[in-house]
Amino acid sequence: MDQVKIFTPASVANVSCGFDVLGFCLEPVGDEMVIRKVESSGLKITKIVGESLPLDVKKNVAGLAAEAILKAHPQKAGFEIEIYKNIKAGSGIGSSAASAAGAVFGINELLGKPFTAHELIAFAMEGEALASGSAHADNVAPVLMGGITLVRSINPIDVIQLPTPKELTAVILHPKIELKTMHAREIIKKNVTMEKAIQQWGNLGAFVSALFNEDYGLMSRSLKDEIIEPVRSLLIPEFDSLKKASISAGALGFGISGSGPSVYALTKGMKTAQKVSKAIDEIISPIGIDFEIHLSNINDQGIKILSN
Amino acid sequence: MDQVKIFTPASVANVSCGFDVLGFCLEPVGDEMVIRKVESSGLKITKIVGESLPLDVKKNVAGLAAEAILKAHPQKAGFEIEIYKNIKAGSGIGSSAASAAGAVFGINELLGKPFTAHELIAFAMEGEALASGSAHADNVAPVLMGGITLVRSINPIDVIQLPTPKELTAVILHPKIELKTMHAREIIKKNVTMEKAIQQWGNLGAFVSALFNEDYGLMSRSLKDEIIEPVRSLLIPEFDSLKKASISAGALGFGISGSGPSVYALTKGMKTAQKVSKAIDEIISPIGIDFEIHLSNINDQGIKILSN
Repeated sequence: MDQVKIFTPASVANVSCGFDVLGFCLEPVGDEMVIRKVESSGLKITKIVGESLPLDVKKNVAGLAAEAILKAHPQKAGFEIEIYKNIKAGSGIGSSAASAAGAVFGINELLGKPFTAHELIAFAMEGEALASGSAHADNVAPVLMGGITLVRSINPIDVIQLPTPKELTAVILHPKIELKTMHAREIIKKNVTMEKAIQQWGNLGAFVSALFNEDYGLMSRSLKDEIIEPVRSLLIPEFDSLKKASISAGALGFGISGSGPSVYALTKGMKTAQKVSKAIDEIISPIGIDFEIHLSNINDQGIKILSN
Repeated sequence: MDQVKIFTPASVANVSCGFDVLGFCLEPVGDEMVIRKVESSGLKITKIVGESLPLDVKKNVAGLAAEAILKAHPQKAGFEIEIYKNIKAGSGIGSSAASAAGAVFGINELLGKPFTAHELIAFAMEGEALASGSAHADNVAPVLMGGITLVRSINPIDVIQLPTPKELTAVILHPKIELKTMHAREIIKKNVTMEKAIQQWGNLGAFVSALFNEDYGLMSRSLKDEIIEPVRSLLIPEFDSLKKASISAGALGFGISGSGPSVYALTKGMKTAQKVSKAIDEIISPIGIDFEIHLSNINDQGIKILSN
C-alpha cells in the first residue's frame, strides 16, 4: 500500500463535567486526507484545500504530528500529505486534532500499523500543541480511538475508551465567530474552590457510570460544569438562551465544545436532536451571525479509510 | 414485627480520587443495634454498650437520625434503640454513620419499609451532621445501599451504586490515636489548583470505568489523591512508609479512610490483602501505638438483619 485516503472526523472535547479529560467523536463532519508514501525522502504537505493554512511542515499541526511518528519509526521513504479541510480552524470541534490525528493514522497505515491507536495519541499531541499552546489529548484521543474517551493522564498517556450508549446523539452549533483556543485558555482561573471541584468530580464519576448503564436520566443530571462554563460562555453569543431552549426541547445536556465558539447538546435519539436543532436555529437565525448546525451519532470508529 | 436486631457495618469514605463522594462498605467490622417499637410514644436510646456516648436523643447521631425519619413518617407508637458499639468513635471508618444509618434502617423495617435505601440517606445524614459538623452522605450511603457508592449530589440527594469487582478486598489499619473529623476538615484548603482538580476528576472517572470493567490495573493507576492526602496524611503516623510498603506488597492503592486516622488499602484478592496486612503490621508494631487491622471483602448488602 503506497497511498491511503481517509475521513478524519471532528470531535467535541471539554464535555461539561469532563473538562480537559472527556471527548467524543462526530460522524458526519470531518476532513479528508490523502497520505502517500514516495521514494524521495522527507515529509511534504503538498496540498491544502478549504482553509488557508501553512504548507510548511514545521508550522502545520499535521506536519508536526507526522514528524513525531516518523521520528519514532524512521523511514528511508518520504511521505506526502494532502489535506481537504471541512472543519473550520478555530471552530471548537477539533479542526487541528482531525489534521494531526489523520496524519499519524495515515502514516501508521502505510507503515503496516506498528503502533496501536493508543500509541498514536502521543504523536498527534505534538501537532495539537502547536494549535492550542499546550499539549492535550482530549480531541485527538476520540478521533484516534473512536467513541467517547477519557484522558486519565497525559504524562504518561493513559486514555480509556468509555461505552457509547446506542441512542446518544449530538447537536453541534458552530457560530462563525473567531475565538482562539489560546485566548479562551487565558480567561480560565488558575484555582477553583474545593466545593466546585468536588461537585465536578462527583458529576464526572456519575456520568461515566451513566454511560455504562445507559442511564439517560443520570447523564442529564450529571452533564454540568459550574467551573469553566460560567466564564467561557460569556464569549459565546446567546449561550444562556441556547442552553435553556435546548434543555426545554429535550436535550440531556448542553455545553461548550472545546473552548468554543461551538456549543454541543446531547440527546437521547435523533428525533429529539432534531427538535433541539430547531430550537437552536430559532434563536441563532435572527442574530445575523453566519452559523452551521450538525446532527451526529457518536462515531464509534473514529477515522475511516475511504480508499487505499 | 416489633423488634429488629441488625448488624450495621463500618465503611470507608473519601476513597482517594473520590474525596467527599466515593465510599464503600466493610464486611466484618460493625456495630449491632436493637430497635424496638413500644406503646408509649416518644424516642429513647435505652442502652449504649462499648463506647461512652450520650443517651440524650438530641446529642446522639442515632437519635437525631431516628427523629428525622419519624418526622417524615409520624407514629403514635414510640421507639427504643440499643446500640452495641464495636466501631470506635473517631476511628475514620464511619462509626457515627453506622449508628445513624442503623437507626433509620431499623425504624424503616418496623414501619413496614415505607422508604427506599436511597430515601433513608437523607434521614441518616441528619445524624451525621452532628458528628462531623456538616451533612455528608459518603459513609451513610454505602452502609444503607451496600457496596461502593458515589454521591453525585447531596442537594438534592443523588447517590449511585457502582459495581463491586468480585475480588476487590480491603485492608484497614486503625491506629488508635484520636483525630476529630472537624479538625481534619479544618486543615483542608478552600481552593485547589485547576491542574490538580483536573487530575482528580480524570482519576475518578477512570476509577469508575475500572469498576465496571473489573480492570484492576486501571483501578491501581487511578487510586490517587494529590489534593487532600498530602495535607491530611501529615496527621497520620508513618503514613508514607505504610503506603510504600502496602504498594510494594501488591496493594492497588492506599489512602486515608474518611478523615483518618484509619488508612485503607485495596487489593485484588484476599491473599494479597494478607501480604499487605503483614507489611503494615511490620511497620506499625514497633511504634508502640495500639492498633487494629481488619481484612474485608466489599460488603455488597450493607446493613444486615440478624433477627426480628
